[in-house]
Amino acid sequence: MKLMAVTDNHHAVKDIAEKIIAVKDVIDYVQIREKSKTAQEHVTLINYLLTSGVHKEEIIINDRLDVALCLGIPTVHLPEHGLPVQLVKQHYPQIQVGCSVHSLQSAREAEVNGADYVLYGHCFETNSKKGVPPNGINPILKMKEELTIPVYAIGGINIETIPIVKDVGADGIAVMSSIFATKNPLESAKKLREAMQHEK
Amino acid sequence: MKLMAVTDNHHAVKDIAEKIIAVKDVIDYVQIREKSKTAQEHVTLINYLLTSGVHKEEIIINDRLDVALCLGIPTVHLPEHGLPVQLVKQHYPQIQVGCSVHSLQSAREAEVNGADYVLYGHCFETNSKKGVPPNGINPILKMKEELTIPVYAIGGINIETIPIVKDVGADGIAVMSSIFATKNPLESAKKLREAMQHEK
Repeated sequence: MKLMAVTDNHHAVKDIAEKIIAVKDVIDYVQIREKSKTAQEHVTLINYLLTSGVHKEEIIINDRLDVALCLGIPTVHLPEHGLPVQLVKQHYPQIQVGCSVHSLQSAREAEVNGADYVLYGHCFETNSKKGVPPNGINPILKMKEELTIPVYAIGGINIETIPIVKDVGADGIAVMSSIFATKNPLESAKKLREAMQHEK
Repeated sequence: MKLMAVTDNHHAVKDIAEKIIAVKDVIDYVQIREKSKTAQEHVTLINYLLTSGVHKEEIIINDRLDVALCLGIPTVHLPEHGLPVQLVKQHYPQIQVGCSVHSLQSAREAEVNGADYVLYGHCFETNSKKGVPPNGINPILKMKEELTIPVYAIGGINIETIPIVKDVGADGIAVMSSIFATKNPLESAKKLREAMQHEK
């Protein structure tokens, strides 16, 4: 089971870089999701990560395919209103593409259109989607039956909910606040990893 | 002298598309500068323009190199905090790149770094930069002495100020509200074109 840390767009470039570097050996991937940062800030952040020992293969760029292409980052994550996955795959088949999905149907479409993984959510109630009812975890069961690409779960994932997500067969989890809104991101990431490895 | 219409980020996709289509035969370029629109909306807008007779060569995409690459648009305009021009040129030498500059010094740097044109401003007081003192038009004189790439002027350009901009030798003007905030964009564009062609 893989652990993806998703940045929360709440920190300055240097601060979020330091948090990522702190957890880099515990997580599998970091998704740079800094919607209010400029392209220049993205470049600064990613160059800083690369020179600090974060590998290109561990980095996923949200939305900005151009930043990924110019910096040689192999994976992009397309948000719901991002570039269409088939358009990206048609021009850049070598780029790994993840898609945010909110239902079994949209997960099916993402796979048909060429997505390399889907990120499904939100699974549980979460502060970052306050007031929006969660989509639950049941669709993951169906996705695991029908899809061949990995399914990541996002939204309210923490050490309490990890066993439930593991139970439905998710290939990985994506967390935001459970790492980046905590006082000690490294300790938090380690605890998440421990919960992921725990056998029933 | 060239006429670039810069979109104002104040209209829905279909509305701005219709305004652009209305003026397409009078302007030389349209710069799609829709900072609050998603990548998907950019794709929808540009596909709509292309199927409505706007040529790829007339379209300039602000900031989103990825949208330009995926849709075969040959020109991007990099805002001040966009991707670094040398990074774009290093990976995509075939892409024409314009840069926003606010001084002679930054215009020099843009040219050295590979820019194909500079867009200098803001020249005059303008509602879109309310309270920010204009940089004036004198730097254009120096740019025209030192630079080999075209210099476009932006910021408070209208039929009254066009003669001044023409006088200092600008290769083109870029306008936003003088076209897109008017009741009849086509009439407004025609009047701007007339003022540009007027001999002293």
